[in-house]
Amino acid sequence: MSQKSAGPEILKMIELIAKLPGLGPRSARRAALHLLKRKDQLLLPLADALAEAGSRIERCRTCGNFDTLQPCAVCQSDGRDNSVICVVEDVPDLWALERASAFRGRYHVLGGVLSPLDGVEPEDLTIGMLIDRLKGGEVREVIFALSATLDGQITVDYVKDQIEDQGLEVQTTRLAQGVPHGGELDHLDEGTLAAAMRSRR
Amino acid sequence: MSQKSAGPEILKMIELIAKLPGLGPRSARRAALHLLKRKDQLLLPLADALAEAGSRIERCRTCGNFDTLQPCAVCQSDGRDNSVICVVEDVPDLWALERASAFRGRYHVLGGVLSPLDGVEPEDLTIGMLIDRLKGGEVREVIFALSATLDGQITVDYVKDQIEDQGLEVQTTRLAQGVPHGGELDHLDEGTLAAAMRSRR
Repeated sequence: MSQKSAGPEILKMIELIAKLPGLGPRSARRAALHLLKRKDQLLLPLADALAEAGSRIERCRTCGNFDTLQPCAVCQSDGRDNSVICVVEDVPDLWALERASAFRGRYHVLGGVLSPLDGVEPEDLTIGMLIDRLKGGEVREVIFALSATLDGQITVDYVKDQIEDQGLEVQTTRLAQGVPHGGELDHLDEGTLAAAMRSRR
Repeated sequence: MSQKSAGPEILKMIELIAKLPGLGPRSARRAALHLLKRKDQLLLPLADALAEAGSRIERCRTCGNFDTLQPCAVCQSDGRDNSVICVVEDVPDLWALERASAFRGRYHVLGGVLSPLDGVEPEDLTIGMLIDRLKGGEVREVIFALSATLDGQITVDYVKDQIEDQGLEVQTTRLAQGVPHGGELDHLDEGTLAAAMRSRR
């Protein structure tokens, strides 16, 4: 929209909203209009929340989580098991595991998985930070909770190699693969079924 | 997410983003993370743009458009035809017509269409404002550019009745219905084809 019907302030807002994942120009225009119609209930509170988040939230320098605390609330929390670190790809995975209350150790956010095709190299991830944490000597187990994809598997293998190269006495495990809770067998892909069959108990 | 893994600032941001049209809790979490990872390039500029929009943009009290000017840039613009008003449902429709450079008169944003099912009554729309504009006597034609739906048709009929009840000498027209530019016939619905056939020239 280059014409005068929408002023520069609206165009700027639409342009920035369109950079969010899953939103294109059309949905950004819809979102902008939705915000303008709800100025006091939504637009101004969102502006405040973003400014607040932008000024106060930072990466935890220990685990890579986002928080206003440094180190983050998970790293600071008492009563979590310091001998186990769960390695996740990104922060939403950490949130998902916390929602499931599935884990009471510490986390490490890699920031992605190795991907030769997408140009993600080891130095793009926080693998060095993880090795440094393991050198502290307190950690007995590293659980890899990465995507069950080829890139995820390559990443697990690479990090395991790094741990062995450093001569660290750390056990490495990974999440079980199998039938999801409530999953119907005939809707599952063959890879999942084969993995579930291999890991039967 | 009620647990301590994500702080209240992040939760607040996610909650507000999730209120945008087309975004649910999951995509709001993705968007929030995307913003946090691009703090200087995206999060803070968006916060500023929203605050700026919230403080400066308002409804044009003449036509219902959003702008920082009062009346809006379209209403203020010289060289537009004051004798024609194009009635649209909402601001994006105005933007779309301006993008098409299809119209050089003035606009009137109704704010929706009448919808008995959704509880949209005449007083929820800016029909009164439109009638007041027509009473000025300068307008010779009102073009209805509303959705080609039942609700759109009901709205056109209602506004036309109001214009007639006021004894206003204003011609009313509506956008032509037909085959869209580049539209392939066998992908068009029967209603469109029938309308295109009826209005053939």
